[in-house]
Amino acid sequence: MSRFFSEKYAALTPYTPGEQPQDQQYIKLNTNESPFPPAPEAQQMAAEAAEKLQLYSDPTAAPLHRALAETLGVAPTEVLATNGSDEILNFAFMAFCDAAHPAVFPDITYGFYPVFAALNGVPATVLPLRDDLTVDLDALAAAKGTIFLANPNAPTGIALPRAAIEALLAADPDRMVVVDEAYVDFGAESCVPLIKKYDNLLVTQTFSKSRSLAGARLGFGVGCEALINDLNTIKYSTNPYNVNRMTMAAGIGALAQEAYTRANCAAIIENRAFAADGLRALGFELTDSRANFLFAKHPRIGGEAFYKALRARGILVRHFSTERIKDYNRITVGSRAQMQALLDAAAAILEETP
Amino acid sequence: MSRFFSEKYAALTPYTPGEQPQDQQYIKLNTNESPFPPAPEAQQMAAEAAEKLQLYSDPTAAPLHRALAETLGVAPTEVLATNGSDEILNFAFMAFCDAAHPAVFPDITYGFYPVFAALNGVPATVLPLRDDLTVDLDALAAAKGTIFLANPNAPTGIALPRAAIEALLAADPDRMVVVDEAYVDFGAESCVPLIKKYDNLLVTQTFSKSRSLAGARLGFGVGCEALINDLNTIKYSTNPYNVNRMTMAAGIGALAQEAYTRANCAAIIENRAFAADGLRALGFELTDSRANFLFAKHPRIGGEAFYKALRARGILVRHFSTERIKDYNRITVGSRAQMQALLDAAAAILEETP
Repeated sequence: MSRFFSEKYAALTPYTPGEQPQDQQYIKLNTNESPFPPAPEAQQMAAEAAEKLQLYSDPTAAPLHRALAETLGVAPTEVLATNGSDEILNFAFMAFCDAAHPAVFPDITYGFYPVFAALNGVPATVLPLRDDLTVDLDALAAAKGTIFLANPNAPTGIALPRAAIEALLAADPDRMVVVDEAYVDFGAESCVPLIKKYDNLLVTQTFSKSRSLAGARLGFGVGCEALINDLNTIKYSTNPYNVNRMTMAAGIGALAQEAYTRANCAAIIENRAFAADGLRALGFELTDSRANFLFAKHPRIGGEAFYKALRARGILVRHFSTERIKDYNRITVGSRAQMQALLDAAAAILEETP
Repeated sequence: MSRFFSEKYAALTPYTPGEQPQDQQYIKLNTNESPFPPAPEAQQMAAEAAEKLQLYSDPTAAPLHRALAETLGVAPTEVLATNGSDEILNFAFMAFCDAAHPAVFPDITYGFYPVFAALNGVPATVLPLRDDLTVDLDALAAAKGTIFLANPNAPTGIALPRAAIEALLAADPDRMVVVDEAYVDFGAESCVPLIKKYDNLLVTQTFSKSRSLAGARLGFGVGCEALINDLNTIKYSTNPYNVNRMTMAAGIGALAQEAYTRANCAAIIENRAFAADGLRALGFELTDSRANFLFAKHPRIGGEAFYKALRARGILVRHFSTERIKDYNRITVGSRAQMQALLDAAAAILEETP
């Protein structure tokens, strides 16, 4: 830290992204990337946009917002695209939390929520998941403040039904609920249709997972026009040209080929079932994941030991040292071949484990 | 505004980007874009990166930082790339300003500084330019807080010599100075070489202007390792994957063809002299611009009237309604043909003006 760094941030503990080792080729199952390339139209439109980079991107992102609105069945004024969904989440922490409106979220969820709260000097009310790692809806409903709910949750993969979230929205119309649907396309129910009925709902999604555009950085929020206006006030005071021309083009291209996205999601759901069955057969215990990852532990090997053993065999998964989930690993669901390699490695590791 | 918008931001007046009209083809001289396409290598590398977008970008941006460091003659640990230079500027307002360290900047400068100050709840000390629109260095030196200095300044284009900024750095080693060099490549002296000597200096630059990558969004900061570490703490608490794969590739490609950039800058400097001579011959008064824009007023026509008359003739320039500079327009220096069209239009407008 330099002597110039503001005291405001002196105690900040940044988020730690999943490792991106450069030293050898790993089977990379640690950051929930898609095993499929981006839609051909996304690649082509992005490449064409690269020829016009001397011109600024459209700060209103109008064509992308129109395409998103059409896909989602909402109005273009009910959508805001950002530089990844981390950006729209940070904007939501800025816009909808303050000393009088703490951020409320489970103890086990996306690790960036406490960082965003700290970054913005917002108090955080952290509510434990139940023993079975499901969200304690009663505790959430009873807490005061803006709720951040990853659905499916990360890293557990467990999803809430839309009706449960609607009950939360209806119970207190004066409380904001932000539903982070980064993984929704892999088998959970989206709350997007609820934005017409509830003006206290913001839904965030990303192109990183189901649309194979993690490297393009494209996320978005969906909510009533007034909420989107608030988020635009933040955007235009932070980084008006936040989405570059190539990413905007890639997003439009991906939305033009939704059938490709749906087919990829179906394949991943199938591979998830295959990998889950295989891991269970080896004695692993798994949560009921609706995401493009599995969350697994084994009675005979600790989470960190299994992570390290896989790593030694060239397979990278994500281990969190948080006490409650330290026995688990989060394993991205990739291609069938990757899942087979995972199962083979797991079997070999268990064989060596007394 | 929704009823959920935090009071913190209720009074925020966002930055207004230059207009991007979609209704007709304009000669666009309003946002200081380059008339030249990106370097061929930048286009090609970006297009290739579009094929691998299912993978996250490298959060450490290592290859880009290495290329930048080599070009600038600094260490990779002394550089941080961001999503446009607006992002690194906002990070600097976050990291190096607070209640005890106000942001200090001239009244006429990049219009985003007061917005960043307001966004971050930081007091701003706004010091008037002198009557001749030059920076009042004595007033800056006397003020307490972190100085933000666009050099060349915008929208005046007037540059300070490096020695003047070095004097400011040396006068008070415990005060941070941020030098925003968005336009430095068009004839001003960069302060980058000073970062080895002064740990209270952060220099920011952008690929938007001289490197024809406005639409890719790529900016960066250069400073001693401790300052860069502070900015990384902010980055990893805000948006770790802030620079996407395509933009990173475009940046590396542009840096591989610096001769192309230098040739374009030389052409723009030449076109600037051509346009300035032509405007002066028509009776315009101009500042001594070292940027890729001119700042011009005419005794016979008001700034807004001239802006509107140009717009009616299909030429877009930037007019600011700020009292002190409302007689001026900021005119991007484009191609020779664009400058000729500007001069022709200006002559015709003056002919119609009594």
